[in-house]
Amino acid sequence: MRICRYDEGRLGLVEDDKVYDVSAVLEQLPALRWPVPPGDQLIEHLDQLKPALQAARRQASARPLAEVRLLSPVATPAKVIAAPLNYHAHVDESLADAQIHNNVHVAHYEGFKSPVAKFGVFLKSAQSVVGAGEGVRIAFPGRRNDHEVELAVVIGRRGKDIPASDAFSYVAGYCIGLDMTVRGTEDRSFRKSADTYSVLGPWLVTADEIADPGNLSFSIHVNDEPRQDANTRDLITGIAELIELASSVYTLYPGDVIMTGTPEGVGTVQPGDVMHARIEGIGTMDVAVHG
Amino acid sequence: MRICRYDEGRLGLVEDDKVYDVSAVLEQLPALRWPVPPGDQLIEHLDQLKPALQAARRQASARPLAEVRLLSPVATPAKVIAAPLNYHAHVDESLADAQIHNNVHVAHYEGFKSPVAKFGVFLKSAQSVVGAGEGVRIAFPGRRNDHEVELAVVIGRRGKDIPASDAFSYVAGYCIGLDMTVRGTEDRSFRKSADTYSVLGPWLVTADEIADPGNLSFSIHVNDEPRQDANTRDLITGIAELIELASSVYTLYPGDVIMTGTPEGVGTVQPGDVMHARIEGIGTMDVAVHG
Repeated sequence: MRICRYDEGRLGLVEDDKVYDVSAVLEQLPALRWPVPPGDQLIEHLDQLKPALQAARRQASARPLAEVRLLSPVATPAKVIAAPLNYHAHVDESLADAQIHNNVHVAHYEGFKSPVAKFGVFLKSAQSVVGAGEGVRIAFPGRRNDHEVELAVVIGRRGKDIPASDAFSYVAGYCIGLDMTVRGTEDRSFRKSADTYSVLGPWLVTADEIADPGNLSFSIHVNDEPRQDANTRDLITGIAELIELASSVYTLYPGDVIMTGTPEGVGTVQPGDVMHARIEGIGTMDVAVHG
Repeated sequence: MRICRYDEGRLGLVEDDKVYDVSAVLEQLPALRWPVPPGDQLIEHLDQLKPALQAARRQASARPLAEVRLLSPVATPAKVIAAPLNYHAHVDESLADAQIHNNVHVAHYEGFKSPVAKFGVFLKSAQSVVGAGEGVRIAFPGRRNDHEVELAVVIGRRGKDIPASDAFSYVAGYCIGLDMTVRGTEDRSFRKSADTYSVLGPWLVTADEIADPGNLSFSIHVNDEPRQDANTRDLITGIAELIELASSVYTLYPGDVIMTGTPEGVGTVQPGDVMHARIEGIGTMDVAVHG
């Protein structure tokens, strides 16, 4: 199932190049009162809602995908977690490029099993998340603002101390993630958290549709220029291990996002550019860069 | 006004050593539906609710403060933002102590106006927040887990690109913050975000009661041992400038917390310890450390 949010907050199922409007199902989500528990209520109830979604699909009117404005498939993530330096060739380019490491974010990890073992995972602001149709707005004009395309994992249910062996039972689905980043000396959680600096999309593909998330080719072009082209089989710390590590420190909630790390080829974008991102088994999305 | 949350989520006003139960006012908060907007609804509506809180206070029954279990005065912060290295003597101790810098978090900031100008602010997980009565649970046994006491600023209304000159009009109030931290090579947003690693309390003191938040003495003892003792007048980057910087990057929402940075004297805690924190004009809180 490919679940999208679009226009002013409608819920859709995507099939081929069409969106089927299943927004009526949202009425089944119970009303909430302060203090609202952490997490995204739609993602939390997704399994129970699947029969209703399928029923609504049969009644639904369709619109061409190209006509809708895609929002983030996760509306209210409680946390966005991300892995630094999780492909060897990106570790190498980070070490080689002073504009990336700035003499602060030096990627050496001798004595550690992996970069993630040394540097941990990091947080992005949950309010930095936008959908493909909203685009990225450059927050640091005059500095180097980079695309980082990566596989984003959406957590489906609450968990703490999840063993890697059970990790995939906590996954609701997958989407493309753009971990937009300004280069500089500041902490990752600052440089990657500006409004619009986390793009999720084009939709959520439920976990049952992705046979092996650890073997997906993916890429990004900026305008017509190929930039990043890789496969999740080259992740240094795999998806299950990232879930194990993150959940050993903090409770994961439905809708939490784990951005698994970006491969080599990160590079700058400017207002007016369009980023074209693709992940095998998920789809493609076009994301405009605004000034 | 000193506003607390306690026991199973009751709302109280604190006067001297008593809590007055004003929970009935919470019924005035409107019901919510997914997707819930970012921020804490109580903090957002605090100004409008003040007359109702005062009316409820006149009818309220009182309980001794010592008998209640204090929760975080902000129930659902969207973001917890924190300043690194924001007192000179803490910069010095961080440079001098390899257990603090771990050859990764080196605090030199030559060529920059301040440590914050170099390193930015960073994020803590919004779900790491607990109240004084809940205590801290050590997430990294066998490593150095430190207390960091600091003034916490609670944002009252949504804002972006807030100039320092107008920053205090965005402040709802203040509380004591404990930025619990494991020492190591990982990013700050990882080492400071474990469940329970952000303590807010004992209550929220509304901004009108703090004449000069830039001149408050504060301290922490662990058991009977004095550890940190400082004054916010020694902040390198002041409160208004922190709000200006943070809001230049991301939208601030009601209930967002800015932890302003810790002074010298950070040190380890162990299960069984009790931390006694105090900020002038706010109050004192005792926070137990659990294993």
